[in-house]
Amino acid sequence: MNNTPQKDLTLDPENWDQMRALGHQIIDDLFDYWQSIRDQKIWKPMPDEVKEFLDQPIPEKGQNPQEVYEEFKKYIFQYNKGNVHPRFFAWIQGTGTPMGVLADLLASGMNPNTTIGEHSAMYVDRQVVNWCKEMMNFPAEASGILVSGGSMANITALTVARNSFGEEQIRKKGLKAASAQLVLYCSVETHSCIQKAAEIIGLGTDSVRKIGVNAKYEMNADELEQQIHQDIQEGLLPFAVVGTSGTVNTGAIDPMEELLAISRKYGLWFHVDGAYGALAKLDPVYSERLKAIEEADSLAFDLHKWLYVPYEVGCTLIRDAKKHREAFAITPNYLLQESRGLSGGLDSINNYGFELSRGFKALKIWMSLKEHGREKYAQMIAQNNRQAEYLASLVECHPNLELMAPVSMSITCFRMVKPGLSENQLRELNREILLRMQEEGIASPSSTILNGKYTLRVANVNQRTRMEDIDLLIREVLRLGSEI
Amino acid sequence: MNNTPQKDLTLDPENWDQMRALGHQIIDDLFDYWQSIRDQKIWKPMPDEVKEFLDQPIPEKGQNPQEVYEEFKKYIFQYNKGNVHPRFFAWIQGTGTPMGVLADLLASGMNPNTTIGEHSAMYVDRQVVNWCKEMMNFPAEASGILVSGGSMANITALTVARNSFGEEQIRKKGLKAASAQLVLYCSVETHSCIQKAAEIIGLGTDSVRKIGVNAKYEMNADELEQQIHQDIQEGLLPFAVVGTSGTVNTGAIDPMEELLAISRKYGLWFHVDGAYGALAKLDPVYSERLKAIEEADSLAFDLHKWLYVPYEVGCTLIRDAKKHREAFAITPNYLLQESRGLSGGLDSINNYGFELSRGFKALKIWMSLKEHGREKYAQMIAQNNRQAEYLASLVECHPNLELMAPVSMSITCFRMVKPGLSENQLRELNREILLRMQEEGIASPSSTILNGKYTLRVANVNQRTRMEDIDLLIREVLRLGSEI
Repeated sequence: MNNTPQKDLTLDPENWDQMRALGHQIIDDLFDYWQSIRDQKIWKPMPDEVKEFLDQPIPEKGQNPQEVYEEFKKYIFQYNKGNVHPRFFAWIQGTGTPMGVLADLLASGMNPNTTIGEHSAMYVDRQVVNWCKEMMNFPAEASGILVSGGSMANITALTVARNSFGEEQIRKKGLKAASAQLVLYCSVETHSCIQKAAEIIGLGTDSVRKIGVNAKYEMNADELEQQIHQDIQEGLLPFAVVGTSGTVNTGAIDPMEELLAISRKYGLWFHVDGAYGALAKLDPVYSERLKAIEEADSLAFDLHKWLYVPYEVGCTLIRDAKKHREAFAITPNYLLQESRGLSGGLDSINNYGFELSRGFKALKIWMSLKEHGREKYAQMIAQNNRQAEYLASLVECHPNLELMAPVSMSITCFRMVKPGLSENQLRELNREILLRMQEEGIASPSSTILNGKYTLRVANVNQRTRMEDIDLLIREVLRLGSEI
Repeated sequence: MNNTPQKDLTLDPENWDQMRALGHQIIDDLFDYWQSIRDQKIWKPMPDEVKEFLDQPIPEKGQNPQEVYEEFKKYIFQYNKGNVHPRFFAWIQGTGTPMGVLADLLASGMNPNTTIGEHSAMYVDRQVVNWCKEMMNFPAEASGILVSGGSMANITALTVARNSFGEEQIRKKGLKAASAQLVLYCSVETHSCIQKAAEIIGLGTDSVRKIGVNAKYEMNADELEQQIHQDIQEGLLPFAVVGTSGTVNTGAIDPMEELLAISRKYGLWFHVDGAYGALAKLDPVYSERLKAIEEADSLAFDLHKWLYVPYEVGCTLIRDAKKHREAFAITPNYLLQESRGLSGGLDSINNYGFELSRGFKALKIWMSLKEHGREKYAQMIAQNNRQAEYLASLVECHPNLELMAPVSMSITCFRMVKPGLSENQLRELNREILLRMQEEGIASPSSTILNGKYTLRVANVNQRTRMEDIDLLIREVLRLGSEI
């Protein structure tokens, strides 16, 4: 019966031994990189030659895998962003861990489509979502889904909130048919992904009420209630309040108890954007202040930030699993579930989110939590918070440094000051400090604008940072600032 | 100045040598797995003991990494889904390649947040998007973004289409304020993610017009035009036509030229869902029929399907880069771009999609296309298409086998028949063949329903499949069918 006309093609290696050896070399190169990272520059500029190389058209012919890897090393590896470095403090970007990376290797190697069917990845995914509920003290009957990160976690939750609103049947009929304009509430300090989510799900920028904040950058609850009241008077339909646990600028925590109470009073969905700071619950210093998170209707948080796993993975938890499923479930003919075989097993995960095909992103969380246990993560997160407080204490002790916001969680905003400089000159001074610090490869804070003032911003979800790195950062800010 | 009170914690290994050795062991285990996969069962049931193990609460304490890995091997690795196996033919799920997996390892190890900044991953990401344009013959000035897969690629494109519609300012004002209900058009065979996208972006299920298909499961263009006409008469706002290049059920290709012409005639956005089959353009047999894809306003396609890279990665291309950016761009204070340092460089990628943080998913495409070149992919895709045609030829030669749909691209739908069996009995017969074939670990087709009839469905985007596997599949269907 075999009448194959020609040799079958494959993309598997022509030379398995060579490819295996390349795998071993990559392991060694990565471990060498991690073990020496403390002594490396955090960042270096990309020469024009590298940019030109990375701007060539698609290759028609293949080349030897070892050669491809050498090009990778020459043009890509050494110009890394740097968020694996112990002195990377920019933008709330996690470090990753070696075990997390090995888990990604295994996930990619197994390559299971983790959406449907009776196979191990489905059970690991479920277990990890359950562990997320445990970390957040969410009820066991809540539902959840692992997504690519905070933006997707938030938009997933807000879609459920929107679809669950009243008797509007928005999933079926759309927003045009709603009885009035829906509006949602967050603060002026809320992450841009909330506005973006509102725009994407059809509510529009104008539907986002950005409530003012107090001196600690926390949402003003009285203003929130007034705005809800006014919107109701105007015939609009308030449907959700978004509280932030750890704002991106300063780590501020909105007044969770009050937002929860107001949400309940007006029958609104209470969503918490904890992309950065929900996991601060594990630090005893913050656990009480974040208690009300446990009562939220939905919660979004990232694992590639403060669980230190490699990109990409975030999580959405939804208190009411039925509403969650009703927002997304579709079963096409080619995905019928069976009671036996590969199509058996757990409820399909695509019934709980945007995506059909899904990778095995649960595995890195599974292996990481197994490796360290919840306790170690609690200590690690607490350490980042103490590092931020320590940095603030150094700032406050020095006459040429100014703390620009109260320290909350692991973010410290400060700037260098010199007598007699105007605001514009201070901006240029600190901007120059930041750029030179990156250009010299020393450390990488980022910047932001607070009350119109340019500030250095140290956002630390880094598992490699030591107290001595904080000392070094301050020394270098002062050195660079004095040289400018 | 150093007054650190205690030893700094880290999640890096206590024993680097042990962790490095574990990395080497994982490489060997994965290569052993891939090199012997042809002799392994494609699937085996998960014992209750395994399911119980994967249902334990979160660990409080950590354990030795080697021990975690042994648990992984015992409870997870051996119960893999099977889409890496040469006889996996279910659900259009790609195989992955060793080089793709090593690239994922490197991406995870570097862990760059690939959204913003002056670093190599940004340039690789841009280059890969340009390569995607080249493969699809899209103009160089078009824009694009790598996303998690087809669902996200489609919803990204439809969001741009919706926001670009007329003078409605939907991003700002929302759909409630639109002058009428927007509607979009696809066929009854269109992937469920299009309906889901319409629901999520606030249009609602009712806004999706599912046009009928011909005997080859291709959208009926006359019916499309009639429906558009009727909707305009009723005061609705048609805004987009979605053509499918490779339907999920049968691989059917909608009449692209006609859909393009109708879209232009009525001023509608022409989107192509090529999640599965846009890459069939590389097969000379299909390139002409898919020519009109090049004129689409937007195109969604997967790389983890027919470019055979590991999960997750898909791509959206948008002809009008300005409209693309206007749909998503937001620049918060903490993401100001600089002309120097780490915050310099290319336009931030979050301005083109849903997500802010992004991993380095471009690298596996970069390394794979470097390894094999476009030509090899063209041959590989063509081979899958020829395998499907070969399977159909075997079906048509046998009196007990019935072809259930015309073969298009790499999908073959067929069933076993026996004289005198009712439709219900045929359904049970073929369902039993499918389940036993999975349970015996031989091969894994999937099933679907076509014109109310249960059918076996062989969807092949597998780079490990040989012609002999197609022979074996038919032999086993006949053997199992005769045993039942």
